[in-house]
Amino acid sequence: MTTVRLLSDAEVDTIPGVKAVFDDIRATRKSEFVNNFWRGLANDPASLQRVWGEVKAVMVAPSAIDPVVKEMIYIAVSTANGCGYCIHSHTAAARAKGMTEAQHGELAAIVGLAGQTNHLVTAMQIPVDPEFDVTT
Amino acid sequence: MTTVRLLSDAEVDTIPGVKAVFDDIRATRKSEFVNNFWRGLANDPASLQRVWGEVKAVMVAPSAIDPVVKEMIYIAVSTANGCGYCIHSHTAAARAKGMTEAQHGELAAIVGLAGQTNHLVTAMQIPVDPEFDVTT
Amino acid sequence: MTTVRLLSDAEVDTIPGVKAVFDDIRATRKSEFVNNFWRGLANDPASLQRVWGEVKAVMVAPSAIDPVVKEMIYIAVSTANGCGYCIHSHTAAARAKGMTEAQHGELAAIVGLAGQTNHLVTAMQIPVDPEFDVTT
Amino acid sequence: MTTVRLLSDAEVDTIPGVKAVFDDIRATRKSEFVNNFWRGLANDPASLQRVWGEVKAVMVAPSAIDPVVKEMIYIAVSTANGCGYCIHSHTAAARAKGMTEAQHGELAAIVGLAGQTNHLVTAMQIPVDPEFDVTT
Amino acid sequence: MTTVRLLSDAEVDTIPGVKAVFDDIRATRKSEFVNNFWRGLANDPASLQRVWGEVKAVMVAPSAIDPVVKEMIYIAVSTANGCGYCIHSHTAAARAKGMTEAQHGELAAIVGLAGQTNHLVTAMQIPVDPEFDVTT
Amino acid sequence: MTTVRLLSDAEVDTIPGVKAVFDDIRATRKSEFVNNFWRGLANDPASLQRVWGEVKAVMVAPSAIDPVVKEMIYIAVSTANGCGYCIHSHTAAARAKGMTEAQHGELAAIVGLAGQTNHLVTAMQIPVDPEFDVTT
Repeated sequence: MTTVRLLSDAEVDTIPGVKAVFDDIRATRKSEFVNNFWRGLANDPASLQRVWGEVKAVMVAPSAIDPVVKEMIYIAVSTANGCGYCIHSHTAAARAKGMTEAQHGELAAIVGLAGQTNHLVTAMQIPVDPEFDVTT
Repeated sequence: MTTVRLLSDAEVDTIPGVKAVFDDIRATRKSEFVNNFWRGLANDPASLQRVWGEVKAVMVAPSAIDPVVKEMIYIAVSTANGCGYCIHSHTAAARAKGMTEAQHGELAAIVGLAGQTNHLVTAMQIPVDPEFDVTT
Repeated sequence: MTTVRLLSDAEVDTIPGVKAVFDDIRATRKSEFVNNFWRGLANDPASLQRVWGEVKAVMVAPSAIDPVVKEMIYIAVSTANGCGYCIHSHTAAARAKGMTEAQHGELAAIVGLAGQTNHLVTAMQIPVDPEFDVTT
Repeated sequence: MTTVRLLSDAEVDTIPGVKAVFDDIRATRKSEFVNNFWRGLANDPASLQRVWGEVKAVMVAPSAIDPVVKEMIYIAVSTANGCGYCIHSHTAAARAKGMTEAQHGELAAIVGLAGQTNHLVTAMQIPVDPEFDVTT
Repeated sequence: MTTVRLLSDAEVDTIPGVKAVFDDIRATRKSEFVNNFWRGLANDPASLQRVWGEVKAVMVAPSAIDPVVKEMIYIAVSTANGCGYCIHSHTAAARAKGMTEAQHGELAAIVGLAGQTNHLVTAMQIPVDPEFDVTT
Repeated sequence: MTTVRLLSDAEVDTIPGVKAVFDDIRATRKSEFVNNFWRGLANDPASLQRVWGEVKAVMVAPSAIDPVVKEMIYIAVSTANGCGYCIHSHTAAARAKGMTEAQHGELAAIVGLAGQTNHLVTAMQIPVDPEFDVTT
């Protein structure tokens, strides 16, 4: 159950601004499949255009971080935020880009360990060591 | 202000189980510096021993994920959890292991973008596409 | 699957303290429909009475903030907390009180943008500018 | 730096509705000390009255859960929510009611462990076992 | 303590892409003051340009939601995410745009109440009522 | 839908390191039932062994905190983190160890109240009272 309707391809074809973004998603990913996130966001064409522009700039354009690593970072944030959809879609993307099962297992282990030490640090309210200061 | 006392080296020296872990932290990291997290956790020697064992197993032992990448994943989770201490200590660790400023900038960009799309997905309550199913 | 049973109207009728709250919910909202949240909370009559009193005081009583705006703020908090049920029930309430689709789209855009800048600020651990101080 | 002013006793004395709540806090806790939370909330007398009523009902009134345990549950939630002030104030309250250092260490260990397994479960998106269903 | 340096105006003047964004921030807000968030983000000029573009599109451009309301939604999300800097900067912005003290008090009351019912719903794992479905 | 496969008993029997942990889970809990969390974690035998070791050390071994209280703290953290699976599994465990319905109702009330005051404190950014300092 969603709070907005998920637009079908037939509906998308009738809204030029949405159609253009869907075409670009398909061309960029070299795949006919457009996942539900974009079909929900299409209810607000301005947001669709803006967010897809962000995703292309941050996740698709050449960068200093390896594409698989970028997806693993995305999964890590989505896990801490408890966003099930995001975990599923970016785990699929990470696997498609070459993440191995061993790497997936280690990713979960790191995320879990960080969850533990994050909570311990917060419970004890540990002050930041001056040695970690980069501004001086 | 902490909720527990941070143990000094003089105090650590009087508790054999704690002293042994501090010695191992120093030997493993080849550095005399032991950061505040361990000094707080030392109030509960059993937790200190257990958590340091975890950190060694997950973050120090050879693995399928590159050490810098592991630290970047740790920073990503700590950011989503809002743990300032953890962000500072693991950003220092990531830099020490070779993270460049360009990679740090991109890391923040990915974490920020994930924060945005996580919230959009959650607001719209998007259902997981069956195409993402790995169990069938 | 819930962790408590959801009480039916027949069951509610047998517990006077619960029945009175359900009657007040129906009278206040001018609707026979009582949603699942109250049916779960009815397992603990003291909590039911207390929380409904809060909701009436904060969300129903006349106030300085417009009723639709109050529901949009509720949705915003529920999204950041990842509470799917809360997002659905308060999106329904906001629509019933007049939230347009354009406003819903903008609400999601603001929540998403805040998710991004919140994560960027946290990753960089930005200190509060003294210009924002209201206490001096 | 706060987003609202913290009211002094002199200011509180000039607002009858606020003064009455402060008097009740002091009488209930048998202490002259009124902590900052209430001094901030006093900017909105209706909220002050309502929230103090809640705290008395849930945390002070006789109940099926031991007072120290109630404070430990409060600390656990506050840790997961990353609320430093709440952790400090309820850790002080728990100690005042008899929480030992050993219990405090274990509390942090449980909270940390839950942080770890919570993140692992979320990363793997584990479905709920039908054996955990209480509604059938 | 930050994880990146906060750029001074003198430094900003030496980086054309950053200077142009700072000029636009000042022109858009009709104020010489540029807050720390942008000075931290300026370490990554591409992110600075992208995020400022988002903020202008979502928070500054004319829209279906009132400017004060938009800031209150921003504060609500930032509170649920525990981002202190974001709460301070957007509370200042909301006040500058006309938020009254009474509205601020009510905002906190709604955010607090949502925090309570969100946690109650999550603890009981309440299923979404079919009555809330908008997709059928 | 999970992001990893849940291993059946037949599959577990073919992986010695996993089989040994499952045997220990069954022996420790005196029950044939092994819940899905462990079946998902079994994809990464090293994590399975490590996390089960943690759970035994923190949740099963004799300690200064009562076993029912430990489960209630676990539920509290899981609720704040929004982990539905964790809430279900630990609510079942708490009931099996003797948590009454009255205690469960109060647990939810405390968790909800903490959610409310946590959000209020965060919205107001209340500074920690020096009276709460344990380090001096």
